Amino acid sequence: MSEVQSVGVIGLGSMGMGAAKSCVRAGLDVYGFDLNPQALEELGSLGAKAVSTNAVEFADKLDSVLVLVVNAAQVNTVLFKTDLAAALKANTPVMVSATISAEDAKQIEAKLAEHNLVMLDAPVSGGAVKAEAGEMTIMASGAQSTFDALEPVLNATAAKVYNIGEAIGLGATVKIIHQLLAGVHIAAGAEAMALAARANIPLDLMYDVVTNAAGNSWMFENRMKHVVDGDYSPKSMVDIFVKDLNLVSDTAKDLKFPLPLSSAALNMFVSASNAGFGQEDDSAVIKIFDGIELPGVESKQK
Amino acid sequence: MSEVQSVGVIGLGSMGMGAAKSCVRAGLDVYGFDLNPQALEELGSLGAKAVSTNAVEFADKLDSVLVLVVNAAQVNTVLFKTDLAAALKANTPVMVSATISAEDAKQIEAKLAEHNLVMLDAPVSGGAVKAEAGEMTIMASGAQSTFDALEPVLNATAAKVYNIGEAIGLGATVKIIHQLLAGVHIAAGAEAMALAARANIPLDLMYDVVTNAAGNSWMFENRMKHVVDGDYSPKSMVDIFVKDLNLVSDTAKDLKFPLPLSSAALNMFVSASNAGFGQEDDSAVIKIFDGIELPGVESKQK
Repeated sequence: MSEVQSVGVIGLGSMGMGAAKSCVRAGLDVYGFDLNPQALEELGSLGAKAVSTNAVEFADKLDSVLVLVVNAAQVNTVLFKTDLAAALKANTPVMVSATISAEDAKQIEAKLAEHNLVMLDAPVSGGAVKAEAGEMTIMASGAQSTFDALEPVLNATAAKVYNIGEAIGLGATVKIIHQLLAGVHIAAGAEAMALAARANIPLDLMYDVVTNAAGNSWMFENRMKHVVDGDYSPKSMVDIFVKDLNLVSDTAKDLKFPLPLSSAALNMFVSASNAGFGQEDDSAVIKIFDGIELPGVESKQK
Repeated sequence: MSEVQSVGVIGLGSMGMGAAKSCVRAGLDVYGFDLNPQALEELGSLGAKAVSTNAVEFADKLDSVLVLVVNAAQVNTVLFKTDLAAALKANTPVMVSATISAEDAKQIEAKLAEHNLVMLDAPVSGGAVKAEAGEMTIMASGAQSTFDALEPVLNATAAKVYNIGEAIGLGATVKIIHQLLAGVHIAAGAEAMALAARANIPLDLMYDVVTNAAGNSWMFENRMKHVVDGDYSPKSMVDIFVKDLNLVSDTAKDLKFPLPLSSAALNMFVSASNAGFGQEDDSAVIKIFDGIELPGVESKQK
């Protein structure tokens, strides 16, 4: 399998758009696909070879595919409901970077194999800024030949690529365990800031103390800034962590393994979603706490 | 109140020893007190004016006191059971840097006031390395004149001093909320690494992924290294977080505030202590999980 010259990027949200731009910058022939015409226009103006709502249209041009949609259902839709898998050239490597379960990853691999396509189980992390800079973290499993074939895409989009092993599903599992930490850290940040608000500690000061001390986390620093600013416009969303912590819970169920903190954190995000904050920034999980005043949010004190 | 020239450092554990050394380096006259003769010898050889198991002995030499013991009971013992408070010069500022409840801080302030002494409610963070470097984070409340008087000690020991306000108890509360995050992050790190072990993900790889991605925390990076190395020799201890998360729980109880994650984390540390790991490194909280093999630890699989 020779190295790829072209890549179809499916899903031009914050991560996919960043990855697509990074591929353009690296000199790859980039074909962009999304249902959002604004995203297509943006990528088109930045040097993509072509953009479309329908990836099948350019299937014969694609040496590789990068799928950066939200969940397993969307991966299945874009690959198999649209006939894309059937239209791609044999042996085209398909890099699946959505956060999905190990079981879903294995099922998608099997379906790709029916079309003589190979898969890299390659979830990503790092956020929109890192994606834009071509500095995502990729935690991947698959055949070494698939890693080799996708090297130009991996180099263009990632600062760090972990090769976890051959078995499809390992990449998904590592990402899910990563999301366990991400989700618990956001919920813990919310719990701490809510307690600070209840104790009449100024939240900007609390934020400043924590971010300069051993209680800090990447998520605390990034997300609790939104709480301090009272800005819950969605960068990531509460419902993303409802999904991801449910994937954590499914993984634990399969392994019969107890997860006291993840279970509590999942319950917090579900409560937030149920209270109507599902489409707000994930930091809005703090709104489940009653009896506190938050910057920019009306008091819930009854 | 003029600036202090001498300081009595009471409690020469990892944090107190680091603070005492930093004061020596800054040119202060340092008097060190501890029950451990080795600690006294070490500080004596590094330029302390005097060291002793009995702080009362040098009470008339002290312009200021820094108390860096483990809990409120020890603070009360060293200040009031030894007659030190009675022996100190009037208006001597006493910087209380143990992690204690807001209520304990207020009671200690009242007792110091009976002896015409003033208190800075000044918990610290940063770990032994930062203490040694004179770069602790100090989150303090008290009268501005007490901050001013202690400036030489604060400058010598801290990279960052937060002035949270006048009221004694605010410093304690901010530290307790900080410990909420620290404790939950250690427990979350343990939960994630335990799940990784159960899913047959190599722990060194999992550690490497997380520390290069958005799931990272200060505590994950610092403490899960001990798990990867299989080294549970105590830097901090499980029982310290049993104590600190109980302080978090007491604070929440006073404020009638629910803390789903902290409660779960407290239960994990209590389980670890109850299983016999109280005196091990706090990362040993991971040993509560059955059915996994950890580096350097015999399997608990039954």
